Amino acid sequence: MYLQYFFLFSILLAASDALVQDFCVADLSLPPGPAGYPCKKPSKVTADDFAYHGLAAAGNTTNIISAAVTPAFDGQFPGVNGLGVSIARLDLAAGGVIPLHTHPGGSEILVVIEGTICAGFISSFDNVVYLKTLYKGDIMVFPQGLLHFQINSGKTPALGFVSFGTQNPGLQITDFALFKNDFPTELVAKTTFLDLAQIKKLKGVLGGTN
Amino acid sequence: MYLQYFFLFSILLAASDALVQDFCVADLSLPPGPAGYPCKKPSKVTADDFAYHGLAAAGNTTNIISAAVTPAFDGQFPGVNGLGVSIARLDLAAGGVIPLHTHPGGSEILVVIEGTICAGFISSFDNVVYLKTLYKGDIMVFPQGLLHFQINSGKTPALGFVSFGTQNPGLQITDFALFKNDFPTELVAKTTFLDLAQIKKLKGVLGGTN
Amino acid sequence: MYLQYFFLFSILLAASDALVQDFCVADLSLPPGPAGYPCKKPSKVTADDFAYHGLAAAGNTTNIISAAVTPAFDGQFPGVNGLGVSIARLDLAAGGVIPLHTHPGGSEILVVIEGTICAGFISSFDNVVYLKTLYKGDIMVFPQGLLHFQINSGKTPALGFVSFGTQNPGLQITDFALFKNDFPTELVAKTTFLDLAQIKKLKGVLGGTN
Amino acid sequence: MYLQYFFLFSILLAASDALVQDFCVADLSLPPGPAGYPCKKPSKVTADDFAYHGLAAAGNTTNIISAAVTPAFDGQFPGVNGLGVSIARLDLAAGGVIPLHTHPGGSEILVVIEGTICAGFISSFDNVVYLKTLYKGDIMVFPQGLLHFQINSGKTPALGFVSFGTQNPGLQITDFALFKNDFPTELVAKTTFLDLAQIKKLKGVLGGTN
Amino acid sequence: MYLQYFFLFSILLAASDALVQDFCVADLSLPPGPAGYPCKKPSKVTADDFAYHGLAAAGNTTNIISAAVTPAFDGQFPGVNGLGVSIARLDLAAGGVIPLHTHPGGSEILVVIEGTICAGFISSFDNVVYLKTLYKGDIMVFPQGLLHFQINSGKTPALGFVSFGTQNPGLQITDFALFKNDFPTELVAKTTFLDLAQIKKLKGVLGGTN
Amino acid sequence: MYLQYFFLFSILLAASDALVQDFCVADLSLPPGPAGYPCKKPSKVTADDFAYHGLAAAGNTTNIISAAVTPAFDGQFPGVNGLGVSIARLDLAAGGVIPLHTHPGGSEILVVIEGTICAGFISSFDNVVYLKTLYKGDIMVFPQGLLHFQINSGKTPALGFVSFGTQNPGLQITDFALFKNDFPTELVAKTTFLDLAQIKKLKGVLGGTN
Repeated sequence: MYLQYFFLFSILLAASDALVQDFCVADLSLPPGPAGYPCKKPSKVTADDFAYHGLAAAGNTTNIISAAVTPAFDGQFPGVNGLGVSIARLDLAAGGVIPLHTHPGGSEILVVIEGTICAGFISSFDNVVYLKTLYKGDIMVFPQGLLHFQINSGKTPALGFVSFGTQNPGLQITDFALFKNDFPTELVAKTTFLDLAQIKKLKGVLGGTN
Repeated sequence: MYLQYFFLFSILLAASDALVQDFCVADLSLPPGPAGYPCKKPSKVTADDFAYHGLAAAGNTTNIISAAVTPAFDGQFPGVNGLGVSIARLDLAAGGVIPLHTHPGGSEILVVIEGTICAGFISSFDNVVYLKTLYKGDIMVFPQGLLHFQINSGKTPALGFVSFGTQNPGLQITDFALFKNDFPTELVAKTTFLDLAQIKKLKGVLGGTN
Repeated sequence: MYLQYFFLFSILLAASDALVQDFCVADLSLPPGPAGYPCKKPSKVTADDFAYHGLAAAGNTTNIISAAVTPAFDGQFPGVNGLGVSIARLDLAAGGVIPLHTHPGGSEILVVIEGTICAGFISSFDNVVYLKTLYKGDIMVFPQGLLHFQINSGKTPALGFVSFGTQNPGLQITDFALFKNDFPTELVAKTTFLDLAQIKKLKGVLGGTN
Repeated sequence: MYLQYFFLFSILLAASDALVQDFCVADLSLPPGPAGYPCKKPSKVTADDFAYHGLAAAGNTTNIISAAVTPAFDGQFPGVNGLGVSIARLDLAAGGVIPLHTHPGGSEILVVIEGTICAGFISSFDNVVYLKTLYKGDIMVFPQGLLHFQINSGKTPALGFVSFGTQNPGLQITDFALFKNDFPTELVAKTTFLDLAQIKKLKGVLGGTN
Repeated sequence: MYLQYFFLFSILLAASDALVQDFCVADLSLPPGPAGYPCKKPSKVTADDFAYHGLAAAGNTTNIISAAVTPAFDGQFPGVNGLGVSIARLDLAAGGVIPLHTHPGGSEILVVIEGTICAGFISSFDNVVYLKTLYKGDIMVFPQGLLHFQINSGKTPALGFVSFGTQNPGLQITDFALFKNDFPTELVAKTTFLDLAQIKKLKGVLGGTN
Repeated sequence: MYLQYFFLFSILLAASDALVQDFCVADLSLPPGPAGYPCKKPSKVTADDFAYHGLAAAGNTTNIISAAVTPAFDGQFPGVNGLGVSIARLDLAAGGVIPLHTHPGGSEILVVIEGTICAGFISSFDNVVYLKTLYKGDIMVFPQGLLHFQINSGKTPALGFVSFGTQNPGLQITDFALFKNDFPTELVAKTTFLDLAQIKKLKGVLGGTN
């Protein structure tokens, strides 16, 4: 019962000290709302809810993009629920690429830990491409919702962390949105001007249909 | 001087009645900040600042997409500054298409006024394509930052209005971001997996270089 | 169970791609919170959740105000939950009036589709009345929470759409707040300076008591 | 120059310690934006900017409503700029009334310091009137944007403080919006259903024209 | 069932009038989320939900600080849920002190009702101490999250009310955070540079361990 | 002139494509407002505005805390202005400590890059100390405004990055707020219960007066 421990809150300061909602660790078993998940009962919260080990190991980069994104968003790391922050790990093998994508929900800061990363984003205002080559310790910011990418431009693996001003920024990879689903080829063509052959080829690679 | 009329505000209610900032019509001659433009002096504001005639005429659709978007965002309609709303007019000639695009800054509601529009958006969660054919009077909502499009699926011109929960939603057309600038062809290829020939072809059509 | 599909989210990008809460279609069977309704399970969401047909037909204007407002807010159109936008249809027969009212929750943009509408709002700062006559295609913005109205000032029916930067702007019609309830006549008089006879007359018309 | 002291901020913690914008005292000589006024230079800020003596004296209640509202909003008390709080003093002589009004910008909490106050607000949902008689030490909350009022229901003067979750809630008194300006009598009648005679009478009392 | 009364909302204005969520009185029996508690059903809400008597009596000041804080936050006063305001009562006996503390969630305005209060806060920017002595009717604002305190600097009891721009500002008393728990003495020493003897002494007073 | 390039925005999509404020790089020469700094003209913005090299080198840890915090907040890294994110570098020599502190403006995520860090925060609700020892690749979240600290608990230097969901979280180090200024010793004693000798000792170490 939530009720019982809220009565505690009304005790005067001199006797105790007390107020709710310093934090709101997600209870993932309940349906979320627009602002996030309902909170786990404070009495069941422990220090473990605020730490996460899942970014310590490198992501598996033996894949088509030679890269991996390992998120610590609300779904993986319930401690960030309601706190307006999250983070993810970027592993880029030699030749690795995080393809063109957007985060609908928030801006991103990348910090390069190892290797060399060429990163860029494109403004919507005038389609300017802002490109930078980043070395160990460099940071770059990507404004909310704009198309951007990261490429390993060195010869060794690259590692970075990307953080966000939201508990879940979302991630829409343009190629996946176009070619990794049942988006009818004809509609893709009409709305992107890509050739049918090109579309079919990429649908083949990514497992799209229609 | 702003100072002088603010002294008025401190007069008690019984004598007058008065508080600032019912609205904040944009002064476009001053630099904006993250929350919008500085406000025009209230004494210079008239009813004309809150109305706009620029959406009354159809946009010119004799172009490559047989379509036009005419915005009434803060830059065109300074009255919406700070109010969290804006609107645009959509004209789609027969065969017209608003190509795949996103609005980084807000969600959109479309209302169809004339004709038939096939519209859709793609979730980032699992790349599901949500498709609907809309008729006169129908509405559809497109969540913030997700790729979406509108196609005239009828044989006559179509007209719609799209409204937003922000004074300036931004607009990033995927094709323009990729092909209508100096985004190096090789980088486009690396970050989209498109063929070089396809990229060069569309850069040719849209005026891109590199 | 929500839990099960959230485990999916932690799969690395290379294997899948996935993040929550591109959208949050309202589950109206659960109690809302301050930010809106809990979300329907993504697996049960279809394209139909994002479109709405309820504004396609004209509202019934054979009533005391010769006008009708047909809303597509969160209660009617659950797809807008959490997205910060909503819309409503305005039908004004000849002589029709949307009486003086406020939307406590957000600003409004009106677009005139047919006919001629005289609209206005009143600033709180200095009680200035901002009045405009609007024709087909014209738009007007009404700042949050301020008293405003719309009148059919032509001889034919008028049609408009009003959109909002919130999923539910609320609607408080001054006359209904004063005369269509059990607000004691004496208190209405004390807080408005209206004559008792006037109050009783309007209570009679609108069905108020006390 | 703002520039010079911002260079200080980049000094490492060990040497100094430093970050901007704990607060943003309003510089009322510059034009505000949607989020408030530009900040006074920190070096010119003193403790006096955060305190205000203007609510210490009773407002003058020898007026038509036998009441006075003395605000400490951003225009009077620049220290609250950007902080999301403000306050006002309510003086109600015997028989005093704060007439029906709204605050477009925020919710209100009233605390009664002296006397007895009958207060109420009206929901927009179903026009329910929520009425309470409040005694010394009682508090009441009035949700954002809804019509509400306060009446001295005792025989002695009443005193209260009302606080808001915004630096400037605005204040729209229904009577002043209708009758204390040049709102054409005919339009008032059309949008409120009040009789012409009633409107003219109140325009006479409050100084309205047209 | 929430469902049933939401169907009502879709009735056209002419027939009824109706929209949700003028307010959202907390249902404390359900788990809160990041934006607050789920709403009590409107049909069960009464005027009593919006008023609170709990601040009318003085808090008990016969304690170590000769002072008491009596909150009316969401846990005590469910009517403020979702409305972005709350309030608390401050009682300071002669010699009473509200020790150094922060409110992580919002800024505060103090109004002095009786007595004399010396109050201050410390900026993070440059550790400036902003100090004021406040008399009856004076107000002072304390920016969000900064260390501040209040001391009865007169010879008689002092009374004040503090209001906040949030439904629950939180309250972290520095002494309690350091000495009224099992924070290991050695860690307190390392992170504050206080002497071990000092730490142990205060842990003894406040009941801390370790 | 800002005016001139805004005229461009009103050009229809077919001809161009264009909307403001994808980003708002801070113009640090102008006074900030509550939402941040005015924006640099888009025409003067380059890719360099979005990248920052200042975190690449280790901070100088030859100081009293054997540690350094190097921020990339809006004052140092103007590209984050308005984007709701920022980051800082943490260097902890052997024995290094980031003393107890708060960030009034936002929550924090720490990622450990090298070494071992013992970190903790204290809830305000019930003064619980949440403690974790973190190794390379581990992350921990610290809720907004709560007291927290980081200690190098290994024998080699530790390196971490902390990111925030705001362009400027602020930083208030408790020791500096108490002892590194002219906060009168007597007031410090009264509001913290620390012994006078202890206060004077730490004022001596940190350079405080009074």
